[in-house]
Amino acid sequence: MRIVVDAMGSDRCPEPDVAGGLLAAREYGVEIIFVGDEKIVGPVLAPHASDHLSVKLVHAPEVISMEDRGLALALKAKRLQPKTSMAVGIDLIKRGEAEAFVTAGNTGGGVATAYFRLGTLPGVERAALAPVFPTQKGTCVILDIGANPDCKPENLLQFAVMGSIYAEQVRQVKQPRVGLLSNGEEAGKGNQLVREVYPLLAASGLNFIGNVESKEVIGGEADVVVTDGFTGNIMLKTSEAVAGLILETMRQKIKSASVFAKLGGLLVKPALQSLRQMLDPSEEGAAPLLGVNGLVFIGHGRSDAQAIKNAVRVAHHAVEVNVLNSIRDEIARSLSPAARPERSLTSVQP
Amino acid sequence: MRIVVDAMGSDRCPEPDVAGGLLAAREYGVEIIFVGDEKIVGPVLAPHASDHLSVKLVHAPEVISMEDRGLALALKAKRLQPKTSMAVGIDLIKRGEAEAFVTAGNTGGGVATAYFRLGTLPGVERAALAPVFPTQKGTCVILDIGANPDCKPENLLQFAVMGSIYAEQVRQVKQPRVGLLSNGEEAGKGNQLVREVYPLLAASGLNFIGNVESKEVIGGEADVVVTDGFTGNIMLKTSEAVAGLILETMRQKIKSASVFAKLGGLLVKPALQSLRQMLDPSEEGAAPLLGVNGLVFIGHGRSDAQAIKNAVRVAHHAVEVNVLNSIRDEIARSLSPAARPERSLTSVQP
Repeated sequence: MRIVVDAMGSDRCPEPDVAGGLLAAREYGVEIIFVGDEKIVGPVLAPHASDHLSVKLVHAPEVISMEDRGLALALKAKRLQPKTSMAVGIDLIKRGEAEAFVTAGNTGGGVATAYFRLGTLPGVERAALAPVFPTQKGTCVILDIGANPDCKPENLLQFAVMGSIYAEQVRQVKQPRVGLLSNGEEAGKGNQLVREVYPLLAASGLNFIGNVESKEVIGGEADVVVTDGFTGNIMLKTSEAVAGLILETMRQKIKSASVFAKLGGLLVKPALQSLRQMLDPSEEGAAPLLGVNGLVFIGHGRSDAQAIKNAVRVAHHAVEVNVLNSIRDEIARSLSPAARPERSLTSVQP
Repeated sequence: MRIVVDAMGSDRCPEPDVAGGLLAAREYGVEIIFVGDEKIVGPVLAPHASDHLSVKLVHAPEVISMEDRGLALALKAKRLQPKTSMAVGIDLIKRGEAEAFVTAGNTGGGVATAYFRLGTLPGVERAALAPVFPTQKGTCVILDIGANPDCKPENLLQFAVMGSIYAEQVRQVKQPRVGLLSNGEEAGKGNQLVREVYPLLAASGLNFIGNVESKEVIGGEADVVVTDGFTGNIMLKTSEAVAGLILETMRQKIKSASVFAKLGGLLVKPALQSLRQMLDPSEEGAAPLLGVNGLVFIGHGRSDAQAIKNAVRVAHHAVEVNVLNSIRDEIARSLSPAARPERSLTSVQP
């Protein structure tokens, strides 16, 4: 199995990206194909030439940076001749020369490059970025969290189908509970989009548990949470910001307080540490972009080597269980006119 | 000055509601008119008859409960003869027999009753619920957080006008910085609504600072944050849920850890306590419903006596500065054709 790692992705690239890829090659026995400028990545990789790992470097002279956006970004992503590390890497999986692509680069850049170069799966109109979110009882998958700020009801139905398959096959959740993010639990609550999606999900045959509020999401009551990319993005970033504010305030208060509180701070440090870990997205490494015609994983710019390694682990597993084919089949089935009524029958909730 | 307090509002009514109203009567020297069932509220109020406070009780035989919703709620809110404590209380301010109404009851019930009985200010299409939100540097006002899940660009422009006046006059913020909640800071980011509101705000003459993400909001970079009621609600509830998860996990971890960590927990308790206080919405008591033709404040169902007292304090201040008239005048000015171009001139940012 061959996994492409964007060596020019993370904020502090190429070191964490290369180190993470090497860790993954060693730990999971996969072949890692780094993409990036050989003048920059080559020297970082060179000391490991004698490690006997299955690793190679494919040259890509350019990068999509955090500053790339709008039309310029679209042009870079579309260009016939691939030059950026993202385009070179994604073309490798397009040509079947690798099975999955992992990057910690510009999220919009990863989404645009994947859209333009791979296209979407047959019948899929919009792809969705589906990160794993920490909850009181474990984790859940939320999609979309940023690929599409404006969505139609049918898009969210497809997100639910894709998210369920991903949760079931890659995250090994049996009959994943699908919740629709809303401003109230009762049916009928929500904005227009939510009110239109609700009956589609209720008739979908999925294990739809109805509307969920943030409290239920964080309480761990759903395995898959469906929302438009604007709302999902606000939810994700609010969580990060509030957690950051609390942990930082806690640190400050302990630091500036009495010597007793400082001592107390030292003693609760392990508790704080494990809390940080629980809230840390690097455990899951990266979010899959579900719905494009290839396995693409996009991680946080802050990713360290551990996060990159974990992203490769998840990508590796997604290839093994062939989640792409399952999604392709299920979308095709959900769109075939014959399947619809039959599926609806099984969806009637007791 | 006369402030109406819904004695049947909070989850544990009538005790906290009555106690809070009495505290406010004593501390601020305002007249408090309680509304509620005299058989229930009377006995709670009776022991204070000799306190020489300016307090009275107006009978309302019914309540809008947390279970009231949809059409049944609308019918209760609209009924010609007021029977619920909310309708009786709001009719008092409508008839000029009191200056403001405070409730910790069902939010949807408060919004619907105010809409139907008071109507909106001339030119205002939608009212907005505008709570105060804790930030790293203090607080900001976010609106709307739930009165209208679906908004048009013009609604958000009016929210910005009303929120600015409220921040300036009631919260004493000079030239409040207005941010538009979005999934990215750059102009052009956002869903369709945000992209359409942006130029309206830029030309409004308000101190518009552009798009803001949750990180900037929580970092304290805006005084007024404008969003639709669906997104605002998700943001508010996500903050509450994440803060709850972190503080609860912290408590659990300390409890179940070594004796040293337990000791540490005791020592950091004051720090945790002050963090809780910072995140506690009861400091501000209640959120104004801006845009209706009267001063209505709606607080959290969990409100205690302190929160009710604080809500009366804020309502009292809003009456003193006559914020309702200022909003009425500013909305009228913003709608007059002559005013528009002149205001646009002053809005050009350097």
